[in-house]
This record gives sequence, C-alpha cells and structure tokens, in this order.
Amino acid sequence: MPDVRILTERELRAEIGLDVALVNAIEDAFLALATKPVVMPPILRLDIPEHRGEMDVKTAYVPGLSGFALKVSPGFFDNPKLGLPSVNGLMMLLSSTTGLVEALFLDNGYLTDLRTAAAGAVAARHLARADAKSAAILGAGVQAGLQLEALMLVRPIERAVLWARDTEKATAKARALSEKLEIPVEAVSSAREAVESADVIVTTTPSTAPLIEAGWLRSGQHVTAMGSDAEHKNEIDPQAIAGADLYVADSLSQTRRLGELHHAIEAGLVSNDASFPELGAVIAGSASGRPSDTAFTIVDLTGTGVQDTAIATLAHARIVRSGAGTTIHN
Amino acid sequence: MPDVRILTERELRAEIGLDVALVNAIEDAFLALATKPVVMPPILRLDIPEHRGEMDVKTAYVPGLSGFALKVSPGFFDNPKLGLPSVNGLMMLLSSTTGLVEALFLDNGYLTDLRTAAAGAVAARHLARADAKSAAILGAGVQAGLQLEALMLVRPIERAVLWARDTEKATAKARALSEKLEIPVEAVSSAREAVESADVIVTTTPSTAPLIEAGWLRSGQHVTAMGSDAEHKNEIDPQAIAGADLYVADSLSQTRRLGELHHAIEAGLVSNDASFPELGAVIAGSASGRPSDTAFTIVDLTGTGVQDTAIATLAHARIVRSGAGTTIHN
Repeated sequence: MPDVRILTERELRAEIGLDVALVNAIEDAFLALATKPVVMPPILRLDIPEHRGEMDVKTAYVPGLSGFALKVSPGFFDNPKLGLPSVNGLMMLLSSTTGLVEALFLDNGYLTDLRTAAAGAVAARHLARADAKSAAILGAGVQAGLQLEALMLVRPIERAVLWARDTEKATAKARALSEKLEIPVEAVSSAREAVESADVIVTTTPSTAPLIEAGWLRSGQHVTAMGSDAEHKNEIDPQAIAGADLYVADSLSQTRRLGELHHAIEAGLVSNDASFPELGAVIAGSASGRPSDTAFTIVDLTGTGVQDTAIATLAHARIVRSGAGTTIHN
Repeated sequence: MPDVRILTERELRAEIGLDVALVNAIEDAFLALATKPVVMPPILRLDIPEHRGEMDVKTAYVPGLSGFALKVSPGFFDNPKLGLPSVNGLMMLLSSTTGLVEALFLDNGYLTDLRTAAAGAVAARHLARADAKSAAILGAGVQAGLQLEALMLVRPIERAVLWARDTEKATAKARALSEKLEIPVEAVSSAREAVESADVIVTTTPSTAPLIEAGWLRSGQHVTAMGSDAEHKNEIDPQAIAGADLYVADSLSQTRRLGELHHAIEAGLVSNDASFPELGAVIAGSASGRPSDTAFTIVDLTGTGVQDTAIATLAHARIVRSGAGTTIHN
C-alpha cells in the first residue's frame, strides 16, 4: 500500500495560511459547485447528549481534483472544563481515482477556520463595493480576526470596528488585530454603532437571536453572515434578508435549512421555494453580482464540503513539495 | 492536544486476530445494541461513478464504552488493474467524553474483516446446534476462511466443505484452510452438495441471485448469510427466509433494506412490517434463540457500526498495553 503522510496542526500552520492563493482555491471550489457535477452527500451527524458531544462528518468530490476530503469535526462542549478546546478533529485526503488515503491532517479545526475565512473573502470579492474601505466585525472569536484579515486580501480596507457581547474580549481582540493587521481596529459598545460605520459587515457569532436590525442597514453596504451553521443560529433580522437588493447563498439547499434565509422563511417573509443565486453562479457569471454601488447585498455562508476538499488539496500540494510531516509506510 | 497513536495494518495484525476475546467483544456490542441507547446514524455514502469508486462512512456510539469508532471504507473497483486492492480505508477511535482522536488504524479493511467474521461466530454461538460438527462455506474469499475459523471458536467443527463458482479458487482455498485450521476441508462441485452435507452453512459471496434453494435445507441446520450488504445482493432463496423456524437479523431496519430479508419482502413472501428478533435480543434473552435441535434457523448479517466501535475499542486497549504503533505529538 502507498505511504500515508501525517501532518500535525503545528506543521500545517507552517505550510498554509490565509493568502490569495487560498482564496482563489476556495473561489474555484464554489465555481465547481455551480458548474460541475460535484458530489456532496448530506452531513453525517452523531450526537452524544450525555457528554454534550456531537460530531459532523462532511465530504465532497469535485471532478477534476485529484483528491477528495473527508472532514471529521467533533464538538464537545464540556471540554473547556478539562482545559481542552470544544472543537477539534481532523481532515483526510483520499485519492479520487483509487480511494487510497493520501494524507491525514490532524488540524484540530485549523483548516476549517482557514477555508471559512477564505469564503468570506470570496463573498466580498464578488459582492462588496470595489472601493469598500471600512469593515465592521461582529464577534471576537477566531473567525472575527480571520474574516477581517480575509477581507483585507480582496478590498482596500483602511479601518475596522469590532463589537462583541463581551466588551473586554472585544477590546482585547481589537487591539490584537490592530497590531497584527496594521490598520486601526476599534472596539465599539453597540452592534448598531459598528454596523452603521462600515462598508462591509461580517457576522461571526453563534447568536441565536438577531444582532443586526434591518433599520440599521443602508444602501451600498454588504453583509457576510457566516455564524449560522445550525437551525437555531440567527444573526440578522429576517426583514433585512427579505429586503436586500441581492441575497446570495453558499448553498441554497443548506441556507434554506440552516442559514439566515431559514429564519426569513420561518418568519413568513420569504417563501420556501423562492429562488436566490448561489455564490458559485455569481463567480461563474451565470448569476449577477452586485447590481450597483448603491445596492444592499447579503451573502449567507453555512459551510460546504467543497471548501474542505479545496483546502485539503492545496495543503497536500504544498506538503508534497516541502516534504513536511511524518510518513507512515503502510 | 493529547497524542494520537497511528497503527499500520501490519502492526494491527500483530496485535489483534480472530479469537474468543474478540467474539465476546462483538457479542457485547450486539447486546448493547439491544439493551442500551446506542446512537448509530445512517451510513454516509459518496459515489464517484467516473472512477467506479464509492465510500461508506459508519459510526456508532455505545454507552459505557470509552471511545467510538468512525470507519471510512472506500471501494474503487478499477484498482486491481493498477495492482491495488479494491477495498481499503481506515478506522479511527475518538474519545466518547471529549471527541478527541485517540488512535488511527490504517487497517485497509483488516479490522472490518475480523469484526465481520466474529459476528458469524456470535450468530452460531446463539443459533447453531451445540453439537454442530460439520460446516459448509459458500465462497472462496477472505471471509470464507475467516468465517470457518470463527465457527471453530464456538462449535466443535470437525470437518468442512467449501463451494465457490470458481472451482480452482475453491480447491486452493480448501487446501489452505485445511492446513491452517487442521481439519479436513474439501472443495465440492455444487452448492447443493455443500449445503446438504453440513450442520452449519455460512454464505460469504457477493452473489446477486440465490445460491441456496429452499428445498435443499433440512431441519436442525443453521445458516448464517453474511454476503449481503447492499440492495442488489442475494444469496438465499426467499422461500427459505419465509419458511425458517427462526429468522434473526443483526439489525432489522438494515436487513429489511439490504439483507436477505429484503428479497423475501420484495417477493411478497414476508410483509414489510413483519417483526423478527434481532441478534442482540437473542443474546440478551429477551428473544428466544434456537427453539429445538430440529429447528431450521437463519441469521442475516449486514454489518453494523457497533461492531466497528467494539473492535476499535479492543484494538486500542491492546495497543495501549503493548505500546505498539507510532505516536504523533499534536
């Protein structure tokens, strides 16, 4: 049997980070989703309520890529009491032609963080105004920082504001990002203040009730909502979804079920079979992107298996070149 | 993050084989399936028709076990042209309390072979006559040998016959098994001759049409059918299923859909909602086992995720004790 390459999180961090090459790879993945016979089965989900645990397993085959990823994402919410992170897991890359396991990425969710941030950059590249200079980030977690960094790869962002429920965390995160990204990043005391100040808004929280009211939003703005990846999560007023000049989904079948769209449908503001473009179609040019500089646009991201396959393929190409990791002779 | 242990197929073969301890672990898994709130989600399936490839991903959480397995089984049927096996894959063990990956078993299907054979032993232990001395094996693949070996762990088997479509393969397999297991194993030229000579019959083929006619079977015999793990597979005359004194499923929801039972339902011989005992209930004593020495019994095995969790847990316990494998500091 061929060798298997094993990479730890630390080794992966040295090989792959948030850059334009990754954004392009994720853009290509969305393009494939719109234009090729991608195979993306429903997520396998295991719940272990007695330990407050859950596991999601995702996969997607993208024709033309030499490998496909399988991602195992456990979330065990009592882990912090044990000094362990809630979310961990691994990704593997299998050969598209033989099914053999080529690489195991013991990434503890790092590659997922990257591919999620890169999707935010793809959304902004196609929907935000080309001259967008100011950003607002809601949330103070890992994605808050990565989404701002991703935005700066595709738009001339000069300043940002950040809001989170926990003011102390927001202040610390804003300071850290300001240092890292070398632009002014200010923590503000209300979501409204954040939203009203920005050209591009990215929501990155696990909120279960809207943080952004429809009335705060104005023409020319763009919102990327990436916090909602489960039925109960909701960051944006359903009125804003219904009232947007352009609403774009990463996967319409998913956002109808899990995304911000789902809440607009539940509220009766959007019909369940209403059609909206997907990000891949906008990239392909078969659906329109931002209609004008004064349009208000929203992209609803729930996370797709093609993103995992894209980043695993990119990581594999890099480690093949660098020779990083441990090789197991099987 | 805690360390991850990686075991290759060769290392696993040195740690775990077909023995009574494994049969007991698999028996306990079926018992748990009948008596505990086991969580066993539907199989995740990915098809890649353009490369004649498929992948099944299975998992099951068994309350009381410290870990749960996730098994990735790719099957790529053009691999033999490249000198590679069609079926390969790996299994991983995750902690039931934290979701952390504890071990990766790069087993290429070896653990699946073992847990499948062990289920045959469990079936015979509870359904075959206690004095069963002769066995008939249909098929000449890996499971043909392992099922006979498994049977000998639980019944006083003194001789066996083996039949397969390919006479040359059957003869070679019979000779090899005779040497390995130190009992007479004879290749016979018809399935009927094999079936009529034996107390216990095990079918291990990928046949898509019945190999065993109902009229060949007689009272006192036991059949374990383990070849059918997909809708189109069928080894036993549906009349035999309908006419058995006792029919037992590994998982009734699976055998109604994938097993021999499925064909008896399709033929209109058994109603779709007819109730039959499961192997776990027989082990628990909540359903009856073999009713008498003259009864004709059938066990229908399609393969369950609890078996994977059971064998991964056993393998992990052994490698923790022996220190085998490669440790990756993550």
